Amino acid sequence: MELNDTIAAIATASGIGAIGIIRLSGADAITIANKIFKGKDLTKQATHTIHFGHIVAFDSTLIDEVVVSLYKGTKSYTGENTVEISGHGSPYILQSILQLCIAAGARMALPGEFTQRAFLNGKMDLAQAEAVADLIAADSKAAQQTALNQLRGGFSNDLKQLREQLINFAALIELELDFSQEDVAFADRTQLANLIAELTFATNQLINSFQLGNVIKNGVSVAIIGKPNAGKSTLLNSLLNEDRAIVSAIAGTTRDTIEETLNINGVLFRLIDTAGIRDDSDDLIEQIGVGKSLEKMRSADVVVYLFDVLQADLTELIEQIELFKKEGLKYLLVANKVDDLGLAAAQAKFAMLDANMLFISAKTKQHIDTLQQRLYNTVISGQINTESTIVTNARHHDTLLKVAECLTDIKAGMDADISGELLALDIRRCLYYLGNITGQVEVDRDILGTIFGKFCIGK
Amino acid sequence: MELNDTIAAIATASGIGAIGIIRLSGADAITIANKIFKGKDLTKQATHTIHFGHIVAFDSTLIDEVVVSLYKGTKSYTGENTVEISGHGSPYILQSILQLCIAAGARMALPGEFTQRAFLNGKMDLAQAEAVADLIAADSKAAQQTALNQLRGGFSNDLKQLREQLINFAALIELELDFSQEDVAFADRTQLANLIAELTFATNQLINSFQLGNVIKNGVSVAIIGKPNAGKSTLLNSLLNEDRAIVSAIAGTTRDTIEETLNINGVLFRLIDTAGIRDDSDDLIEQIGVGKSLEKMRSADVVVYLFDVLQADLTELIEQIELFKKEGLKYLLVANKVDDLGLAAAQAKFAMLDANMLFISAKTKQHIDTLQQRLYNTVISGQINTESTIVTNARHHDTLLKVAECLTDIKAGMDADISGELLALDIRRCLYYLGNITGQVEVDRDILGTIFGKFCIGK
Repeated sequence: MELNDTIAAIATASGIGAIGIIRLSGADAITIANKIFKGKDLTKQATHTIHFGHIVAFDSTLIDEVVVSLYKGTKSYTGENTVEISGHGSPYILQSILQLCIAAGARMALPGEFTQRAFLNGKMDLAQAEAVADLIAADSKAAQQTALNQLRGGFSNDLKQLREQLINFAALIELELDFSQEDVAFADRTQLANLIAELTFATNQLINSFQLGNVIKNGVSVAIIGKPNAGKSTLLNSLLNEDRAIVSAIAGTTRDTIEETLNINGVLFRLIDTAGIRDDSDDLIEQIGVGKSLEKMRSADVVVYLFDVLQADLTELIEQIELFKKEGLKYLLVANKVDDLGLAAAQAKFAMLDANMLFISAKTKQHIDTLQQRLYNTVISGQINTESTIVTNARHHDTLLKVAECLTDIKAGMDADISGELLALDIRRCLYYLGNITGQVEVDRDILGTIFGKFCIGK
Repeated sequence: MELNDTIAAIATASGIGAIGIIRLSGADAITIANKIFKGKDLTKQATHTIHFGHIVAFDSTLIDEVVVSLYKGTKSYTGENTVEISGHGSPYILQSILQLCIAAGARMALPGEFTQRAFLNGKMDLAQAEAVADLIAADSKAAQQTALNQLRGGFSNDLKQLREQLINFAALIELELDFSQEDVAFADRTQLANLIAELTFATNQLINSFQLGNVIKNGVSVAIIGKPNAGKSTLLNSLLNEDRAIVSAIAGTTRDTIEETLNINGVLFRLIDTAGIRDDSDDLIEQIGVGKSLEKMRSADVVVYLFDVLQADLTELIEQIELFKKEGLKYLLVANKVDDLGLAAAQAKFAMLDANMLFISAKTKQHIDTLQQRLYNTVISGQINTESTIVTNARHHDTLLKVAECLTDIKAGMDADISGELLALDIRRCLYYLGNITGQVEVDRDILGTIFGKFCIGK
């Protein structure tokens, strides 16, 4: 890992903005910036100060009027000398300034390299560094809160506690090994078994939180299906209308992804494109059992099956429900156009099919809020407590699975009364995996590359 | 114009980035930021300093870890207290912080309102303020240099000089009016006539520079047309390949506009979509005289007519040239596939048609650089001297035309020996228009609205 050179990158989003920032980090950040800056001598200014001036090319061409922010020494994001050049937010100008920084001795930063340096310089652990990327990608309150909690070390502290307990355990076992010829047992096996049980419980809790964490981070995909004229488009509009304020408040966030997203209680729901299902012919049941349509339903976290209370056929509905059950899908049955038939009549006709059936009118927006709440409840039970630790990162989840495996091995070993030497091996393996999440043990360059390669350049 | 309140906006480009900035400006900027900032008391910190801390909502929800930059008093961009909050570049988070600023007492800024305040607070004149928008939109060296020159007051100084000369003139005329009953003439009419001639010359020079200014600001549109298999696509690729380095150096700048742009000597050339012409049948000449094809050619600044030296028909080419001349189009005749026929043979066959005909091979990239230089010369004679004043703004151009009109009126009045009173009216009108460009005279709110309405929000 090269830490001797100075890196540079555009740190603001691409495209035209009022302000754009070029960030430099490294031992020479300030001297490099000083070479292209006309104004005060930056090398003589205090840390955490701002200076107005001009960026001037080596051929004396004026590039931009800027302000420069200085971070000297270790009190910066990266833990290194850092300079942020705020220029006019023209991509052309920002690129010109960046090129000039390179010409003056900086190197183009790799994706995530600023945060990687923050990690390598001990400003944050690996789990915290990963939270930075999650925080930047956060597009709902729950995602932002869990990422922020992780960034602030919530998750790391949990792991640290697990690890410390295990280290104490290991110390006793290894003490036994030192005195192995004397055949003493320092570690009370019952107490140790209890500790392993506790650790297993805590680990599994973290592992189980990933289901929720994944939902928070990636959102919930919802397939709204139903026969033509069941009112799917109207429902979609009603759902989106209900949420218009929130959607427009985060305008721009969904630009490059799926267009139709809903924010329910701070969790993002993605209405996946079920055009294939929507446009099916009348023989929906027949077609739904095969091919693409089923594939799409399976890829959704929740299926909303919408039907028209005036048109629906009981037998067909029963077949539909059986299919959902057979496929193990999470589904919501939603009876639409209830205002046309009357709620009592609709309930009398259909309610016995499914205890959880919802009766709405997409057109008059009746019970749309209930549908939203029910969608939320389908994937998330109770309120999300973003203060408690929720694992949102697949790498952490996978590593925790390995931790749990080690714990199982340790328990099995103890049950089989294997030697302290073999037990110590399992414990060390377990400690390795726990340390791997936060980077307390040395992490493979490949893994670091994978982690930071997913970051945007400039972070 | 409301200047008493504090405005807030996201100042960085939309989308996901490493860093995003919310900018606050106004008397209460620092106290408002202080309400939502957990860290040092911002009201007690010095100007031009940076502070790490947290943005916390009124319900104590942590929103983000940020650094805050303080500008106190008039030494800021707007000339007011200014705070820049640098947070994680998630649109969701930036929007949350902005909402919080609004809740804490700020008002959402209108487009360009920060720069408008800079103008109203006397930090820059109107022409300089307009240069800010041009600078942000700059996507070539020439555009950036002319905007920067204007921002630094180059254009304003020229206008100031014109205006001062005219004011001196006016003073003499008005002095005459004061003594009108005594029938004295303080102003030497010959000298005055000379001055008006000088002013007219300078004004016309500025007006004429707009043709170049417009090219610099908006680029040059080029239509490459020709019969099928003339080699248009190959030429396009060769042109773009030649320029790949420059194009990729400003990656992202052209994303939302036309895809194929060329940077020649710092000027942007846009290769306009001539699919309609390109895909025409063999009867090109016939079709080109009518409808859409001609429309597209007319909308281009330059037409490149490409033909295959092995296939081209002399009669057809002559008709083509006559059409271009009849339509008054700027055109370049380019003979392609010269390597297949041999340069000498190609020249012998076609050169007599047009003295400026170019002989190239798009495939082997022979003389592609000459074509680029010729394209450049077609619209720009000589090197662009970006140090001299070039009018790039249509409003300035239109206002200068009115100035020229007034000067003509003044001259006509003097020639007709009209009274000083009437002359003074024309002079005041002329002064008004000159002052209108820089905002030295009070500018209509409507005009200000139009100017700043074109800015992005946050600038």
